[in-house]
Order: sequence, then C-alpha cells, then structure tokens
Amino acid sequence: SVTLFGVLDAAVAYTTGSGPLATSKWQLTNSSNTFSRLGFRGTEDLGGGYAASFWLEAGLQNDTGSGFTTNTNNQSSGNTTLGGLTFNRRSTVSLSGPFGEVRAGRDYTPTFWNTALFDPFGTGGGIGANQIYFSGFGGLTSPTGTRASNSVGYFLPPTLGGFYGQLMYAMGENESRSDIVGLLPTWSHNDGNYVGARVGYLNGPFNIALATGRTTYTLIAANLPVSNNLRVSNIGASYIFESLWSLKLMGEYYDESQGTLDGKGALVGFNLPIGASEIKLSYARYEREPAGNVPKPTSSKVALGYVYNLSKRSAVYATVARISNSNGASQALSGSTTSPNHASTGTEFGMRHAF
Amino acid sequence: SVTLFGVLDAAVAYTTGSGPLATSKWQLTNSSNTFSRLGFRGTEDLGGGYAASFWLEAGLQNDTGSGFTTNTNNQSSGNTTLGGLTFNRRSTVSLSGPFGEVRAGRDYTPTFWNTALFDPFGTGGGIGANQIYFSGFGGLTSPTGTRASNSVGYFLPPTLGGFYGQLMYAMGENESRSDIVGLLPTWSHNDGNYVGARVGYLNGPFNIALATGRTTYTLIAANLPVSNNLRVSNIGASYIFESLWSLKLMGEYYDESQGTLDGKGALVGFNLPIGASEIKLSYARYEREPAGNVPKPTSSKVALGYVYNLSKRSAVYATVARISNSNGASQALSGSTTSPNHASTGTEFGMRHAF
Amino acid sequence: SVTLFGVLDAAVAYTTGSGPLATSKWQLTNSSNTFSRLGFRGTEDLGGGYAASFWLEAGLQNDTGSGFTTNTNNQSSGNTTLGGLTFNRRSTVSLSGPFGEVRAGRDYTPTFWNTALFDPFGTGGGIGANQIYFSGFGGLTSPTGTRASNSVGYFLPPTLGGFYGQLMYAMGENESRSDIVGLLPTWSHNDGNYVGARVGYLNGPFNIALATGRTTYTLIAANLPVSNNLRVSNIGASYIFESLWSLKLMGEYYDESQGTLDGKGALVGFNLPIGASEIKLSYARYEREPAGNVPKPTSSKVALGYVYNLSKRSAVYATVARISNSNGASQALSGSTTSPNHASTGTEFGMRHAF
Repeated sequence: SVTLFGVLDAAVAYTTGSGPLATSKWQLTNSSNTFSRLGFRGTEDLGGGYAASFWLEAGLQNDTGSGFTTNTNNQSSGNTTLGGLTFNRRSTVSLSGPFGEVRAGRDYTPTFWNTALFDPFGTGGGIGANQIYFSGFGGLTSPTGTRASNSVGYFLPPTLGGFYGQLMYAMGENESRSDIVGLLPTWSHNDGNYVGARVGYLNGPFNIALATGRTTYTLIAANLPVSNNLRVSNIGASYIFESLWSLKLMGEYYDESQGTLDGKGALVGFNLPIGASEIKLSYARYEREPAGNVPKPTSSKVALGYVYNLSKRSAVYATVARISNSNGASQALSGSTTSPNHASTGTEFGMRHAF
Repeated sequence: SVTLFGVLDAAVAYTTGSGPLATSKWQLTNSSNTFSRLGFRGTEDLGGGYAASFWLEAGLQNDTGSGFTTNTNNQSSGNTTLGGLTFNRRSTVSLSGPFGEVRAGRDYTPTFWNTALFDPFGTGGGIGANQIYFSGFGGLTSPTGTRASNSVGYFLPPTLGGFYGQLMYAMGENESRSDIVGLLPTWSHNDGNYVGARVGYLNGPFNIALATGRTTYTLIAANLPVSNNLRVSNIGASYIFESLWSLKLMGEYYDESQGTLDGKGALVGFNLPIGASEIKLSYARYEREPAGNVPKPTSSKVALGYVYNLSKRSAVYATVARISNSNGASQALSGSTTSPNHASTGTEFGMRHAF
Repeated sequence: SVTLFGVLDAAVAYTTGSGPLATSKWQLTNSSNTFSRLGFRGTEDLGGGYAASFWLEAGLQNDTGSGFTTNTNNQSSGNTTLGGLTFNRRSTVSLSGPFGEVRAGRDYTPTFWNTALFDPFGTGGGIGANQIYFSGFGGLTSPTGTRASNSVGYFLPPTLGGFYGQLMYAMGENESRSDIVGLLPTWSHNDGNYVGARVGYLNGPFNIALATGRTTYTLIAANLPVSNNLRVSNIGASYIFESLWSLKLMGEYYDESQGTLDGKGALVGFNLPIGASEIKLSYARYEREPAGNVPKPTSSKVALGYVYNLSKRSAVYATVARISNSNGASQALSGSTTSPNHASTGTEFGMRHAF
C-alpha cells in the first residue's frame, strides 16, 4: 500500500553575466526539466467515500547526492542545515471524504501554485524557470514562498463542476509571553503564521485560478513594532487550442508587498507538443516599486526550450534563456552574476527520468 | 524481501503555563498518538530455525519534513545536527535462532521499555505522554534514555513459557590513553558505555517486567575524577480485564540517580476500548530527591485521551492534560513554560495513519 | 520498477597502537565486510537497446543510525555536516544504448575502482581494508578519492570482447571572474574539476585495469598561484586459479602526487573460497616520497580474514590486521593511534546482511 516514486533530472548548464562585475559558471544542475525527488505515498480506503492518506516527498540534489533543507517555523531562523534528506517538498497526512480533504503537515502554500502551474518551465532549477519566483521576495527566498510547515489545509472535493479551491493556515510556533510582568509583550509571537487561499475553475481546455496569502512578520523600529507582513496575490490562466496541435497558452499576473517594498510581475508562455517533441517559450517581467518618484528596477526574461520525450517517463532537453535588466536591476541566471542594467544568458542540456 | 512501513501522526496542540513567567504556544505537533516514522525491515530464513534480519527506522517530524537527530557516542558530544533523516529510532542487523537473538547497532535500551509500554499514552510527542520520561534526567534528555548507539544486544528466545528478557552492552567509543607518558590517564574513557537488562513474564492477561541499567559518565572536580554514572531502574505491569470490556490497567514505578541527583516516579493508567473508540487515562508523579532535609520538587500529570479508530491503521484523537507542580518544580507541557509551583495545561486534536 | 536494496554490516572491533603516544579503542563499526547502504534503483527499457536508469545509494553508519556526509563541489569547502542520510555513494541518472552509457550526477571516480576491486578486503570500514586508500592523500581523505559530484561519465558498451572502460569529467563549479576590471583573475576557478579514465580487459579468469586521473587545485604562494593538482594513477589485476579451489590472486600498484608530495603503494592478496567459508589475505605497502635525500616514511599492513557465509546474503566474519611503520610513519588502524615507527594491531568480529 506504499507507492515509491521519484524523478532524477540532471543538466550541464553554462550561465554568464555581462558588464564589469560579471561572473560565469559551468555546472551540473538538478531539476531543470522536472524537480528531482524521492517520495513515498499511500492511501487507505475507509469506505463511504472516506480515505486516509500520507505523502512524504524529499527534494534531491542529485548532482551531489545531498537533500534539500527544510524550514521548521516559516521564519528564516528555522532553516535547517544543508546535507541530509528531508521531506522538504511535502510531508502530510490527510483525511478525505465527500466534504473534501483536511491535510496536516508541511505542504505547498496556496499562493505558490499559480506561479508553478501557469509557466511552461515551472519553478524548477533550470535556467528557464519562472523569473518572478526567482526575482521577487515572496518566492524562492521566502520561507512561505513555496511551502509552509506546521500547516493545516482544506481542499474542496473534486465534484463541484470544475470549481476547485484550498485554504491553508500555518503556524510560526512562537511562544506567547503576554503574561510576563514587567516585560513588554513579544510583538513577534505571530511571526511565521501564514494564511492563504486559492480558488479556480477548470473546464475542458480552459483553466483559471486566483490566490492570495499573508505571512505575518514584525520588525522593531525605534523600540516599536512595525508590521513587515508579506502579502502575495496572483492570478493565472491557461487555454489549450486543440485545433492548433494542442498548443497550450498560459499566463500569470503576480503582485507582492512586504513592509514598504512592492513588486509586480507578469508572464506569458506556451507549450507546443509535436509528436515526441515539445517546444516551450516564456516571457516574464518583474519590477520593484520603490516608494517615491524613482525609476523602477525591472528585469525581464525570455526562455526557449526543446524537450524530446524518449518515453512518458524519460526525456532529453535543451534550453536557452536571457535576462535583461534596467533601472538598476541586476538579476542573473542562477550560477552567474551580472552588472546592473546588463544581461545574463545561459544554455543547458539535460536528461530527466521519472519512476 | 524488504518491508516498507511507517506512521504519520499530526495534531494541532495548544499548551499554556500559568503564573508570572508563563508562556503558551499553538503548534502542529507530530507523534501525539503514535510516533511518526519511516522504516525498512526484512528477514532472511537461514533454515534450522535461524534467520538474519535488519531493521532501519527513522523518526519523522512530519509537521516540518525534517528528521530527528541521532547520537553517535551515547554522550552529549555525539548529538548530530537537526535536519536530515537519520535512522535514529533503530538501525540494527540481527542473527536469531533457537538460542535467541543477537542484535548489533543502534537500538532501544532495556531500561526504556517499561516507561513506554506500561503507559496508555507511551512516550511520544503528545501532551499525554509519560511524565516521568519528560521530567527525569534519565529519560528524554539522556543520550541513553531511549536508545543507545554502538550496542550489542541479546534477546531470549520466545519459547520460554512466557518469560522474556534482553541484555544490552553499548560502547561510548572513547580513546583509551593510559599509555601516554607524562599525562594522567583519561578518566572518562568509559563514558557513554551502557549496560542494562530487562526481564519479564507474560501470561494471558498479565504482563510484568523489571529493568535496570547503568551509563558510565565522569565529572572532574578539583582535578579528580568523580563518578557521574546514570542509573535507571523500573518495574511495570499491566492486566487486561476481559470481563470489563477488555479494560487494560497498567502501572510503572521508576527510580533514577546520577551523581548526587536522585529522582523517583510512578504512573497508573488504563486503556478502555469501546467499539471503535478508546478511552485512555493516566496519572503520573515524579519527584526530585535533593540531598539534605529540603522539600522535594514534585510534579504530577493527569491526561485523558479519546481515540476514534477509523480503521486498524487510521484514527482521529483528542487529549487534554494538566501538570501540577509543588516544592519549586516548574515542569510544563511541551511548548509552554510555567512558573514554579504553577500548573500547565494543554489540549490537542489530531490524526494518525500507519502504513 | 524500483528496486530497493541495501546492506547492513556491523562488527565489534578492538584496535590499539603501541609506543608512548598509543591509544586504543573498542568500537561497534559498520561496513567491515561490505559497505552498509540503502539504495533505490531502476531501469526503463526504451526499445532498440536503449534504456534510461537511475541509481540512488546512501551510505549507512548503522552503528549509530546516521548517514554519511557528501561533498558538493569536489573541494574540502563542500563537505556537508554529519547526520542525515545523503546519497553520497551514488546519485545518478543514465541514458544507455549500443553506444555505451552516459551517466550524470555523483558517481565513483575511475581512479577509485582498482583500489577497491583488486583488494580482497576492498575499501570498507573494516580493519582489513586497503592500506593505500587509508594512508594516501588521494584516497579516503580526498574529495575526489572515491567519488566526484557534478560529474558526467561515459562507459563503453559491454560488447567489446572483454574490453571495458570509462571516462569522467566532474566540475568544481566555481565562479569565473575574469571579466572584473581592476581585479586579478581568480586563479582557482578550476579547482575541484576532475578528469579521469579507466580501461580494462576481462577474459575468463583474468582481469586487468589501468586508471589515471587529475583533480585541479591551486595554492597561493607569495601572491602567485601554484598548481596543487592531485594526480592518481594505478593498475590492478586478478587471476582465478580454477584448479586451485578457485583461489583468486590479486594485486595493485598505485602512484599519487599533489604539489610537492609524492606517494607510492602496492598490494598483493588472495581470496580462497572453501565451501561456505572464505579465507582472505592481503599485504600492502605505502611510502611517502619527500623531496630531497631523506628517508621515506613507510607503512605496511597485513590482514587475514575469515568469512563464513550463512547464505548468499548473510555472513559472519573475523579479521586480524597489523600495520608496521618505519622512517617516521605512524599509520594506525582506525580508532587507534600509534607512535612513529611503532605498530598498530586490531581484531574484529562481525555480521553482514544484504537485502
């Protein structure tokens, strides 16, 4: 009653920046087409439409044999040490039934999904991966940008005529000290608490989803607490043109803020299957919105990918990508650094095997 | 020939202390009903009643996806870093036959079992778990309080008319330096060595077991070595009243000492199955016994649990618990802190799935 | 389509040195007969002789339940923290066909194999294990002495009439900074790059293989870069005398250098199966070759082993070993230390179970 599953994906990648501060790197990367993982999952039928299930999924850095770190409290203080295998991707136990599903553990945040699903390259480790996710402060670098620990989630049942949705509440698990005489309350005892929701509608070739979430954080300025909450909202949609060789067009609009920081991003892309081949193209743009009447640092990325499917489980692939910067931005493809207002380019060639 | 097995158990828990230093916390906890784990085990029949077998079992913090740390030398210096999965629960290879079983690796110490088995809540991560184990210095916080690394164990065969028993010797693996000219001998080269035994008798509804063990530790006081050995002894028993809805009554008496520290504990409890339901109640008391004619810091705990079994493998459950303190003790339920002589209370609601 | 496999091997070992600085130790060791491991592997047939496959294999310290560390960049800076399970032994995805096999990830270096395969005791954790591997700077202690991360390997197909061979290139993944105006180039951006090859010929009872490899490292001396490349070359051979109870004779010659350091080693040994028993003997010698006309620190090891196979998968075994030192060498069996020019001896008794 246990399914063992996983993916190994490895690519040789070269990325380089430009300008006086540029660096470049050759790497063997993991997860460029599909995220490398090892997992264990299972479901027990309880009768009457009810089921209990579990899901343990560990990310793999298969270029080095190490696992990925996880985060224990949805705050930067909870990052674990790099090395051993953790079930960082998902570690949940669920009870489902006609009412939907209740799920507890470490799981994806509702605000993550649109970024991953409405991008032909997703959010993996490849050079084509979602630019907004890598540029923004609410994506890759945020403890709740992808998943949250200590979460309880609720999912609508799959019987609502194409409507789907989920809610999540996750705990930062800080101590409350409000009873301590002579001490001020600890302002940050709600830090790392996440609340978010996602709703969508899927009907034949058309899919659309909307998500919003907030993670509570506090800064102390001049001995007073200042809210530093992270808010992320996004909307994504896709349409499959069956008559055009099943061309799948997709796009996302993304908005985030934290304290006085603001950022916005948008992406359009497509996936075109041609026999065993697949062509992928994406264009994304992300801009910071500083306070005041100043230029907005902006980076944009274009990525073109080719995948040749050797089977349903195995593929070889190649990608080229380029990030452009303006107004002081200096985003670069992973592995390289680039000077402000200069571009970064990269090429990768890899293989992926799922089991 | 490999069995993959495990448990995922998650609960929403709220614990709070009282008094001027009290703190409280909301948490998603793991292992409140049954310890979360992922394991691999197998047995090879060698013929003639002989068998070779292995057992690898990793603890899971499924609320965050991380593993548990292990300890490499039965001393606090051997604690590993939190993060990746380790086979901290058990990692053994065995040879068994008519003579019994010889087992090598990391395994439970004989002195642990009575605390876990003769408590209706066991020693898991829940708020109802064994108070003696969490309060004492020979339980949760001791490197050999649950398991020992570098151990060789012997188990009696299961053919002795209800008598059972085990011996364990585990090594601290310190260097011996007795040959170094001009240096004093290293007094602590036996630190982390554990020796223990457990014997019991099981006959129909009745079960009783006695265990004792010693871990060698040394302190240096005034440049001289002073023994700081940890000694733990306990006795546990249970009786199933078949005619009273299979009510299982159980209890333990526990005694520990380390250097000049002494502690004593006792527990009574029961488990009452009613159809798919299960009611559990325990009362435990632990007291420190300082030298001299001074009050003995004492804490006691009462826990009441309800389990609804959805199947043999899956359950939902709820627990309430309260710890009381006197004579300066300040034990609190995990996640909270309480003032000396004040109480700590908690509630949890969770689900457990085994596979 | 996933095979779960592994080995658990544990032994009680006593090792001791001699002379004024000697220490001794009792240990429960792992991997003395066969390296302890847990692995997942699988192959997908793609038709036409092509296949995709993966291999994930984690080393196990089953005496303590911890994993082994891995290394992320083939340099000492990339060592991970001890604790959790990593796929340190092998973590690869492959595409194979009539052309051979292309393999990417973390894998054994070509220069490792002769040391492991042409020694009756191999390179495991036992006291009999290959002396050259433990003494030299290009073996156990080198980040590329056993395996390399970020590697791409090519293997000849198994259809070449007994000829076999492999190539590996592995990346240190350092940044190139050659474009930075006003800064000198980073001399060490090639550090951790490994290139190596192995070719061999297997025909009936006869097997011979030759390997050579280089890992790039740089030292900075007087503000100038000095090559500190590690070069390892070796040749190994074995012959099975079918008419002499299948006695297998084997030997290796080994040569290494790094910067101004040089070392040489040689080994002869045999493996003699007698019914369910196996007798193993090896003699190895390793000498450092300092610059100038000075004595060469030399250590030699003799190891005698007895294995009783309970089945194909399970065995009990015993080993005795002795290392002798001269010209200032002070090599000792693992767990002990010995004075310069003094001997170290050891005994172990263990069991091994594969699954």
